[in-house]
Amino acid sequence: MAHAANPTVAFDTDPAHYRHWTLAFDGPIATLSMDVREDAGLSPDYKLKLNSYDLGVDIELADAIQRLRFEHPEVKTVIVTSLKERIFCAGANIMMLRGSTHNWKVNFCKFTNETRLAIEDASAHSGLKFLAALNGICAGGGYELALACDEIVLVDDGNSAVSLPEAPLLAVLPGTGGLTRVVDKRHVRRDLADFFSTLVEGIKGKRAVEWGFVDAVYPTSQFKAAVQKRALDLAATSDRPGAGPGITLNRLSPTVTESAITYSAVSVALNREKRTGELTVHAPTDPQPTTPAGILDAGDQFWPLRAFRELDDALLRLRVDEPEIGTIIVRTEGDREAVLAVDRTLAAHQSDWLVREIVQFMKRTLKRMDLTARTFFALVEPGSAFAGSLFELALAADRSYMLHDDDEENAIALSPMNGGLLPMSNGLTRLQTRFLGEPGKPAALLAHEGPFNAAEAEEAGLVTFAPDEIDWDDEVRVAIEARAAFSPDAMTGLEANLRFAGPETMETKIFGRLTAWQNWIFQRPNAVGERGALQVYGQQGRPEFDWKRT
Amino acid sequence: MAHAANPTVAFDTDPAHYRHWTLAFDGPIATLSMDVREDAGLSPDYKLKLNSYDLGVDIELADAIQRLRFEHPEVKTVIVTSLKERIFCAGANIMMLRGSTHNWKVNFCKFTNETRLAIEDASAHSGLKFLAALNGICAGGGYELALACDEIVLVDDGNSAVSLPEAPLLAVLPGTGGLTRVVDKRHVRRDLADFFSTLVEGIKGKRAVEWGFVDAVYPTSQFKAAVQKRALDLAATSDRPGAGPGITLNRLSPTVTESAITYSAVSVALNREKRTGELTVHAPTDPQPTTPAGILDAGDQFWPLRAFRELDDALLRLRVDEPEIGTIIVRTEGDREAVLAVDRTLAAHQSDWLVREIVQFMKRTLKRMDLTARTFFALVEPGSAFAGSLFELALAADRSYMLHDDDEENAIALSPMNGGLLPMSNGLTRLQTRFLGEPGKPAALLAHEGPFNAAEAEEAGLVTFAPDEIDWDDEVRVAIEARAAFSPDAMTGLEANLRFAGPETMETKIFGRLTAWQNWIFQRPNAVGERGALQVYGQQGRPEFDWKRT
Repeated sequence: MAHAANPTVAFDTDPAHYRHWTLAFDGPIATLSMDVREDAGLSPDYKLKLNSYDLGVDIELADAIQRLRFEHPEVKTVIVTSLKERIFCAGANIMMLRGSTHNWKVNFCKFTNETRLAIEDASAHSGLKFLAALNGICAGGGYELALACDEIVLVDDGNSAVSLPEAPLLAVLPGTGGLTRVVDKRHVRRDLADFFSTLVEGIKGKRAVEWGFVDAVYPTSQFKAAVQKRALDLAATSDRPGAGPGITLNRLSPTVTESAITYSAVSVALNREKRTGELTVHAPTDPQPTTPAGILDAGDQFWPLRAFRELDDALLRLRVDEPEIGTIIVRTEGDREAVLAVDRTLAAHQSDWLVREIVQFMKRTLKRMDLTARTFFALVEPGSAFAGSLFELALAADRSYMLHDDDEENAIALSPMNGGLLPMSNGLTRLQTRFLGEPGKPAALLAHEGPFNAAEAEEAGLVTFAPDEIDWDDEVRVAIEARAAFSPDAMTGLEANLRFAGPETMETKIFGRLTAWQNWIFQRPNAVGERGALQVYGQQGRPEFDWKRT
Repeated sequence: MAHAANPTVAFDTDPAHYRHWTLAFDGPIATLSMDVREDAGLSPDYKLKLNSYDLGVDIELADAIQRLRFEHPEVKTVIVTSLKERIFCAGANIMMLRGSTHNWKVNFCKFTNETRLAIEDASAHSGLKFLAALNGICAGGGYELALACDEIVLVDDGNSAVSLPEAPLLAVLPGTGGLTRVVDKRHVRRDLADFFSTLVEGIKGKRAVEWGFVDAVYPTSQFKAAVQKRALDLAATSDRPGAGPGITLNRLSPTVTESAITYSAVSVALNREKRTGELTVHAPTDPQPTTPAGILDAGDQFWPLRAFRELDDALLRLRVDEPEIGTIIVRTEGDREAVLAVDRTLAAHQSDWLVREIVQFMKRTLKRMDLTARTFFALVEPGSAFAGSLFELALAADRSYMLHDDDEENAIALSPMNGGLLPMSNGLTRLQTRFLGEPGKPAALLAHEGPFNAAEAEEAGLVTFAPDEIDWDDEVRVAIEARAAFSPDAMTGLEANLRFAGPETMETKIFGRLTAWQNWIFQRPNAVGERGALQVYGQQGRPEFDWKRT
């Protein structure tokens, strides 16, 4: 099924298995160095020359950022640099892109965008600052990685430049937020950004600083010392603990069979014939710690971290390895009160560094769900645990069905975690987005005492439908079958528009505007046709374009 | 060149030539009734059944809205309804879409989106309120037209429903803002919007009201009276004059040759070989009125209205009739002071109803330019008139080149019109968008006395480059040639991302997010392939989908 260049992918890794990055520590400063192994791409079809990257390289980067947050609370600044001579990073590997299916390109860009946003998230919410130390040529996705950092410094050696050559060279867009960040984050003037984005060779030296593309340039002789000083200055702005210990993020190691992915608290059952999946999250079954010390001690076995790490991994596997599973049934199981108790602990200790990391991780995982191009229908049945942070799964779903049982025991519940700690990428909570026209309603619902039974939940607008026991089976079955029969592309477009009501942020702009345009371009013959620029790059002859403007 | 269904189009019309709409007047209430002639589509390839529409139908609608603003200041509410029995509007014609090129589809959706936004603009800025009186089935683009109105009422006859059946029926999105307006304007809950948007038959009656899809339903017997009453209630909220006279918008009648489109104040010269156009706007040459009475008397010959109507028409013709002209050189000519004098008049009398209409029209035309998928390079040379409202053309351009002449006589100037009367669709002025990182700068520049010569303009960041006389010819020529050689699709995507720095609004969401996704879907085999849903609709057999989710 998969193209040779689109292998099945595992997203779980650890530093002992990195092939492309090294992590070094020096007090509050960590150095994350790119040193891509040409022959260690995910596929043997291409060589990762000049620190160019594929999904495998980015999975390690994402892992490193995650581990810095959880395992190294003493680190305050991360220097992102390269171990290669005269080259920082040449961007996404072109041969990899050329050999990839449309699906793969889109999922690759989505993940790499999430990784760059995770860098900004770490800076904004975790006090972990990033300094891009560009010690050589920095092109395309390499510059987009730098743009995600708090500061960018470039060596002034007469050769090293930053560039976004995608449009002029390959007839595609810089696909990892470059255009958006240049004007919306760095506030480069749009006409200068236009000029820059059509300049294959990029810009360097003083002009790169004057126009705002980098923060400073330093001659080779001063570069290292200047980077060190700036890293320490950045560290001084951090509110991280400055000392350990952290916790260890152990490998997840799910059991993967032909029809299921099973973790400790999360499972995915696949029905390939119906093109559906069942994603189930289990509430905690053991007693959970209630103090920062207890949480530190529990480490990655503390239920919310364990469950959401597994959920995150499951979503990524579904995206990349199971493209035909278009409709996901979301279920929860277990003790609703146990979830609410954990939520109370998280809310009470939200200023503790580790609790903060856990909550931020839950937030990012739920954003990953919002951005997953699959339909999610949540089914709320007796025995489920849609409460507080797990109720966010129902709020993130495209629809929710709640059984109106004769006993009225089926219930959902809200917690403080629904009140602002897990915002969407549009900056609002899922409750606020849901009730955009009733700004006072989320607070009123959060003030509700106790759970909501099906009638109450439906009346409150917290679930979409609440069929009774007679109708339940048929209504749910028909809804799922109908959904799974629609055009996958139309559902992706529909969901991408309806899920993000309300304000747009730089983050939503990257996924909504830039990515949507890029996906369009990734379909266009001028880029990917036989004579398209992406296809003929590096070969004899020039691309041939259909000159019609659209 | 054009597909049979993609004829050359003129955008200029008037009520005497309408084939699809009728306008009736009753004091402050106008009734705009859709009565599409099946056999009067732009192409003979399809029949416009059931009040379905093509671009020709929408051109008349846009014209009617425009004329209501200028010609009928007495009108305060427009009832939008249908003269067909039991059908309001079936939406965009499917056979037309099926037979159209990708280009045509995209331009069709862009124009129809602009028309619907013009309805909202008239309500927000001109006090002209719109009431959608849905006297029958209202599907797809028909419902999207209703969504653009201030209120929607639906007849409750057991049959009439509102629906967005595009995704389930045709595997495309509702392409005229429907998804965005449902959640962002009407604040329908996203899960209900999801359900609704997959329901071919739509919803009707009380549920349509409860869920927020319409404002009210009335039984057939009460419908007419209820509509009349609501129209009068809406009229009571309007600040329009309530009495005439208006001014007449005469036909533009440019001279069109193989290589030029020539109006009175605007001209377009086409170089098909180089795929470039030169768009020139001439400053006023005659004395211009300075009072509301004088402006009313001058009517559509008042320079700003005349010049911007011509500019608007030129942009539309370039979009639809000249797809291969990818790079537009923007020039102005004439007396800079004459433009500034007109700007002073407009700013001084901005509360006069007609001046307000003129300024709003200029605003919409400049937005049309922002949304035109062509590169614009402004060339500021001696003898040009880039001042105030005409300097907005340079600000709207992707880049501007200003000749740094030895005499230092080449100059630009700002006016109050650059300070807030001509905002972009992101809600900011072009100066604010340009200097997003320096919020205080626009006010400082507006306080500058007198013109800016090239050195001053470059220093102020008001132009991109200011080459001297030795470099000018080469630098400009090379820039234009290089631009015209890039992939048209990549440039469209680049510009769509760089032009809209800063906040997003419902309006920019429609063009940036929804349209970009729709354009992607319009390329996908699941919609437009041989067995795609748009292609097989109404024929034997079901569509066949590639089930991979992207």
